[in-house]
Amino acid sequence: MISVNQRAMTIVRRMMGDATALSIEVKSLQNGATVIDTGINVPGSLEAGRLFAAVCLGGLARINFCNLNFGEETLPGVSVAVDHPTVSCMGSQYAGWALKVKGEEKADTYFAMGSGPARALYAKEAIFDAIGYRDQADIAVLALESRKLPDERVAERVAEKCGVASDQVYLLAAPTASLAGSIQVAARVVETGLHKMHEVGFDINTILSGYGTCPLAAIAKKDMKAIGRTNDTVLYGGQAWYTVRTEDDAITSVIDRLPSSASSDYGVSFYDLFKRYDGDFYKIDPLLFSPAQVSINNMASGKTYRAGRIDDRLVASILMP
Amino acid sequence: MISVNQRAMTIVRRMMGDATALSIEVKSLQNGATVIDTGINVPGSLEAGRLFAAVCLGGLARINFCNLNFGEETLPGVSVAVDHPTVSCMGSQYAGWALKVKGEEKADTYFAMGSGPARALYAKEAIFDAIGYRDQADIAVLALESRKLPDERVAERVAEKCGVASDQVYLLAAPTASLAGSIQVAARVVETGLHKMHEVGFDINTILSGYGTCPLAAIAKKDMKAIGRTNDTVLYGGQAWYTVRTEDDAITSVIDRLPSSASSDYGVSFYDLFKRYDGDFYKIDPLLFSPAQVSINNMASGKTYRAGRIDDRLVASILMP
Amino acid sequence: MISVNQRAMTIVRRMMGDATALSIEVKSLQNGATVIDTGINVPGSLEAGRLFAAVCLGGLARINFCNLNFGEETLPGVSVAVDHPTVSCMGSQYAGWALKVKGEEKADTYFAMGSGPARALYAKEAIFDAIGYRDQADIAVLALESRKLPDERVAERVAEKCGVASDQVYLLAAPTASLAGSIQVAARVVETGLHKMHEVGFDINTILSGYGTCPLAAIAKKDMKAIGRTNDTVLYGGQAWYTVRTEDDAITSVIDRLPSSASSDYGVSFYDLFKRYDGDFYKIDPLLFSPAQVSINNMASGKTYRAGRIDDRLVASILMP
Repeated sequence: MISVNQRAMTIVRRMMGDATALSIEVKSLQNGATVIDTGINVPGSLEAGRLFAAVCLGGLARINFCNLNFGEETLPGVSVAVDHPTVSCMGSQYAGWALKVKGEEKADTYFAMGSGPARALYAKEAIFDAIGYRDQADIAVLALESRKLPDERVAERVAEKCGVASDQVYLLAAPTASLAGSIQVAARVVETGLHKMHEVGFDINTILSGYGTCPLAAIAKKDMKAIGRTNDTVLYGGQAWYTVRTEDDAITSVIDRLPSSASSDYGVSFYDLFKRYDGDFYKIDPLLFSPAQVSINNMASGKTYRAGRIDDRLVASILMP
Repeated sequence: MISVNQRAMTIVRRMMGDATALSIEVKSLQNGATVIDTGINVPGSLEAGRLFAAVCLGGLARINFCNLNFGEETLPGVSVAVDHPTVSCMGSQYAGWALKVKGEEKADTYFAMGSGPARALYAKEAIFDAIGYRDQADIAVLALESRKLPDERVAERVAEKCGVASDQVYLLAAPTASLAGSIQVAARVVETGLHKMHEVGFDINTILSGYGTCPLAAIAKKDMKAIGRTNDTVLYGGQAWYTVRTEDDAITSVIDRLPSSASSDYGVSFYDLFKRYDGDFYKIDPLLFSPAQVSINNMASGKTYRAGRIDDRLVASILMP
Repeated sequence: MISVNQRAMTIVRRMMGDATALSIEVKSLQNGATVIDTGINVPGSLEAGRLFAAVCLGGLARINFCNLNFGEETLPGVSVAVDHPTVSCMGSQYAGWALKVKGEEKADTYFAMGSGPARALYAKEAIFDAIGYRDQADIAVLALESRKLPDERVAERVAEKCGVASDQVYLLAAPTASLAGSIQVAARVVETGLHKMHEVGFDINTILSGYGTCPLAAIAKKDMKAIGRTNDTVLYGGQAWYTVRTEDDAITSVIDRLPSSASSDYGVSFYDLFKRYDGDFYKIDPLLFSPAQVSINNMASGKTYRAGRIDDRLVASILMP
């Protein structure tokens, strides 16, 4: 059986062993949990971001930096080759754990979106029934998109929910507006398409592999803007290819809805949308969240379906303003 | 001395140690030989295909997934940086071993094209005299493009021809119509050009390095169609660059014949050609089999020669129908 | 503390352990120093060039081969993702050590531009005060761009200047006109931009990361031509992206001077310029030496600045004549 936590831990150990070069900081909490700051009090680095993304994917992906061409323009990006996509993307990488730990004072409350392998130990999200995967490991690795370092209470919560000892909890943290933040979100391009497929009723267990590319967002001054920009890179610059084994009908009935352009909110930067909807994230069309182009090759029929495209003009105006 | 079998075995061990994540299956035969199914009864994976290709190249190549642009279109592909091209491509990767083992019943006959390091132990093909390389190793690693798993008789045959014990035989198998199949054929782009050079009389021992890229074929329903498509990716989407040390004349006298476009059969999908020639593979112009574009940099003169080009229209019509 | 020599040594050991496959030669000098020929009496290889570049960057970079598109044309190139850019690029990779060791006869005089980690042990160049980095290590690794293998006297000089024992000196050598030469110069694309930034008064200590791509120069017959071509690949085909944390004014006041196109000598091949200025290297505008396009993302403001562009016509005429 694949243990995304054990696989991720191999990468985490590598990060810990090379912390100075990666410009990350490893801290031991009083309860023995380990916190790895990859961009809050330290700058982090390109390689730290790449490894952060690899941890999120449970060590089941090959991630590289690459150039991406958009008409006359070029942007640096990442390529992500993903195996066991349901396990790695939905069982691990998807940011499905809204981790909220209340403090005595309101200001002490910790909140962050959690992603990564530990989710597959907690495994209370509905998606785990859908994919039929749960991890069994005595180590829990969780990745937090946050500007605040998690403390003992956060580690305790993760330990408790995952059924591991506190000193076997490893928490990676990076703000969205950081090197690691830009990279790890871009590396979600395959996952984003998978999540959309699941949302529109496609059986993601028929997906055998995923490959995608996504440009890196220019790091924003503030996290809210960074959230906008990193989403935009996927929506307007992301491409994903999937290999599946299913009925063609299962694909043709959803393919047109898969790319971001299927959404009525397509064409506007995420940050502007957020303002348009008065800061209410949930008013944004959920169908917006997917790569600009999605291709599906069905092994069972040999056919390939593709929807959406990269709009070089939007890339220039939204990703390279 | 370089042992392509020993080098490949390092990769094979890595595959065996990570079989579940790679979606491959490792089987021990009764005579102690090892069979690694990378796409017959199991789906295989992108990474399994990448490692399969690395095994074929005797561990002498660096292979990565990448995006390839064709006009407005983009396809996922592989890049292959090859050292010791005569040894790795012709001495190992080339599918030169037509392995046929008769069974008691006709249906029991096993047939597959064999490629990879074990060829350099058997080394009865004429190419081995041309390149002056033969491996010496007590392990034999053979890659089989087949939809049928090899059995004990096949392993015995390989052991006997390679002069190794049966329990030192490692047989990797993947059908053409599989993830690993698409990837490992695309990774032959440098080899294909090398083979063509040899065919037209260029001394391939003057080649110092090779680099190439090739899009991944959409996986077909059946192997015959997959054979067509994977060949098409090289013929219409492949590019190869070689560094040589020779006389310029040796290049100028052949360069125009090197790209696939030099063939009178160029411009038609391989599968359609196959039908046109009533299924007789040998009626297809052998000069067709090479990358769409071949570039040769001669260190001895400093000059670079290039022939052929990627035809975006053909890529769209043949590779992305 | 980061030791670029220790990090590089890990890569050097890997090279030494795989010398035959890399087509390099390892020689022990009488004083115990080690010389690694990666392209003088041996051909070297693509992978040897890649590792040579990784050594130059003090083991702080991720280097891959890739395709680069220039309009309708494609060239093989390298991508370089650099962490700790001041340390890796300026403290190590920059060719700042003009190593001249006089012999008894004039013909015995050894001269080569030295780059790589050993510079950070010697550390007498002014740049080391600027970046506030010096290495402490008992091993010295120096990379020499030369057609002549260094001897005992050269190793002694390096040992003495670096404060290490002679038998702890590792000297890598490759001529410019070699596989390793083409690759290791292309891999300087991020460094070249950094150096230019420093020259025009930008505080390079504000740079957090660098990513760049550069095509590989066709290997020339002679080194002088190769020096021209490898420089041209950076000047006309190089792109670099930097992440910084500084005031926007610090960027806006220099950005227009950063790309090679800011130079009055832009548009002519380096070799032709060299001839135009009667072979006087120092008459060439120093502002010419930088990537064709430079982009800077300022984390502190969230803004991105870009100057220069790839001129496909110049790439075709200068890089692909």
